[in-house]
Amino acid sequence: MSNSASRSREVMKKIIKMARSTIGDFKAMNNPNLNIPVRSLSNIIFSEERGMIEMGDKTQERLFFHQGMSKKFMQTFLVASACTELLKVEKTTSIRDLFYMTKHTLSRGENTFDDQSESDVIIEDIEVSMGALREELHLFASNRGTMVGNLTLVDSGDTINARKIGSGGWGIPSIVEDNVIKFKNCDADFILLIEKDAVWRRLNEDKFWKKHNCIMIQSQGQTSRGVRRLIRRMHDELNLPVYVLVDNDPWGLYIYSVIKQGSINLAYESVRMAIPDARFLGLSSFDREKFDLPDVVTISLDKNDEKRAKQMLAYPWFKEAKWQKELKKLLDSRVKLELEALSAKGISFISESYLPEKISSGDYLD
Amino acid sequence: MSNSASRSREVMKKIIKMARSTIGDFKAMNNPNLNIPVRSLSNIIFSEERGMIEMGDKTQERLFFHQGMSKKFMQTFLVASACTELLKVEKTTSIRDLFYMTKHTLSRGENTFDDQSESDVIIEDIEVSMGALREELHLFASNRGTMVGNLTLVDSGDTINARKIGSGGWGIPSIVEDNVIKFKNCDADFILLIEKDAVWRRLNEDKFWKKHNCIMIQSQGQTSRGVRRLIRRMHDELNLPVYVLVDNDPWGLYIYSVIKQGSINLAYESVRMAIPDARFLGLSSFDREKFDLPDVVTISLDKNDEKRAKQMLAYPWFKEAKWQKELKKLLDSRVKLELEALSAKGISFISESYLPEKISSGDYLD
Repeated sequence: MSNSASRSREVMKKIIKMARSTIGDFKAMNNPNLNIPVRSLSNIIFSEERGMIEMGDKTQERLFFHQGMSKKFMQTFLVASACTELLKVEKTTSIRDLFYMTKHTLSRGENTFDDQSESDVIIEDIEVSMGALREELHLFASNRGTMVGNLTLVDSGDTINARKIGSGGWGIPSIVEDNVIKFKNCDADFILLIEKDAVWRRLNEDKFWKKHNCIMIQSQGQTSRGVRRLIRRMHDELNLPVYVLVDNDPWGLYIYSVIKQGSINLAYESVRMAIPDARFLGLSSFDREKFDLPDVVTISLDKNDEKRAKQMLAYPWFKEAKWQKELKKLLDSRVKLELEALSAKGISFISESYLPEKISSGDYLD
Repeated sequence: MSNSASRSREVMKKIIKMARSTIGDFKAMNNPNLNIPVRSLSNIIFSEERGMIEMGDKTQERLFFHQGMSKKFMQTFLVASACTELLKVEKTTSIRDLFYMTKHTLSRGENTFDDQSESDVIIEDIEVSMGALREELHLFASNRGTMVGNLTLVDSGDTINARKIGSGGWGIPSIVEDNVIKFKNCDADFILLIEKDAVWRRLNEDKFWKKHNCIMIQSQGQTSRGVRRLIRRMHDELNLPVYVLVDNDPWGLYIYSVIKQGSINLAYESVRMAIPDARFLGLSSFDREKFDLPDVVTISLDKNDEKRAKQMLAYPWFKEAKWQKELKKLLDSRVKLELEALSAKGISFISESYLPEKISSGDYLD
């Protein structure tokens, strides 16, 4: 039995255990109660030791006989039951699909769910209660991102040689657990994650990954769960350092920080998704002077940028002096920079000068 | 010389011709003038014969010695010069990159471009003036969409067997002209274009493309230029019919109509991108009754939906009785449906019942 099949059985067992305990409560004439871990800022800690955002151990009651809770109680079992079904038939589906699968009208005219936001929250409840990622419940969010580089992998039984995958690359699926994706032969020295697909394409056209022996992934903005989990697995299992290349603005820094420490909203996933030693390669606010970029390609920070950068200054995971310096430089300079701004120095400046210099001199933050 | 290399030379020649003519005007002491085809509703016609939206032959002057036009005149040459450079060095870049490449500060403190919206418009001017798609000017927009199915192709020299590309699929690049993408062996009977990646994944997991011998593409919403052009090429060169599967709402119908007739804004591209005999497979407003879908999965039309559907009723390309019936049914029923709503009938209802029934009975609109 594969790791994943045994993992599916484990998750199913936990769901069945929850169901049995509830049946037991009914039989004993107790008010059935689920203890759901709290997923808010009040239950978040930043572990300096592990370098990630983690969930504390506060839980909240969810009672069956309770006017305000009984609907959510019922919804929890509806979703858990649908996930068990998915696990049994070995199929996966989207969280949107799950909403439709579990949306019914009850006999008194009320709907089990009116809006997907209701079922999404229940999915998160079950994830934390069962200690399972949604992908392990056979659910997926949207998939985004493509990959090329010095690696062969197996995706659902098909061998993918990411060295021979053309200009388009291999589309990264949203479920990348080891029943779907297996790593074969890897010669790469590192992973380069790029926020922007246009930059990834420039680097792919210049065969950057071949010259610098790496794996290149583009995330099309905020990194999807599939991409985060895939990079984490490659980092762990193939021992590859991870470099992150994003725009020089608070949003870019946020993308980096989610990869590194996880996010506040989804803190319970950090342990499976975060990569505390991911390295921030750029764009740094210091790059403008270092690489002599013209003023004309800068963009003024707007109010939101400033507000966000100030928030980030206060986060425990940006408390180190090097990060305070970086964020303060961003605020002091009052401008941001997109990755494409490097093209002002020439179309292949990024692949022929910027990245090689940064990587060879170890000019990154971590 | 490949088709594409000769095409590049052709495009470069046209740009050089424009430049020579302008130099000639200067030498002859004439006011240099570019004639740019007009790209607005006033210059659009729907060709019933060819079944596509086309650009008329109105042009507008762009004079060098003219207070209101001289900046645009200069911008036109800046962009044309950058494209010529890209064509010469055989590199491609994004329209965002091009903006940065051509953004300078002039000696009197004015910028050549302040905002990308300015350079994007100039790119369109050059496309229509030169009769070349932006991809032929070596420019790309964002890439989106993935593909699986019974086809082997070559992408930038790498052979891609789309039958062995895993759960992730092959990422469709934004430039798919014949210098980049070459079709090899194709056993597919048709192309299925799906608006939603989650539905594509369900069908890929169920190996729908294998059982029904097709190529499956997902477009993640509005179809990108790369996907449109690729489908058009496969349709023309491999003789494959194209079926489109979208949500049952005005947005879904719009996605279909852009694939079929082209769009008003980019009418000049229709001749290279539109597929007038593309078939609308669903979701149709009649599917709800045909497939006995529960009321609970419908969503009420909002004001925007109604407004948009009414606009569409008036478009010449929706004038046929079958389309009027379809649109009126949507408005009368006052509800819309997402593709995921089919999951209310079971997770694989779409792959095992809905699509096979629709395709085998020829139940589509065209």
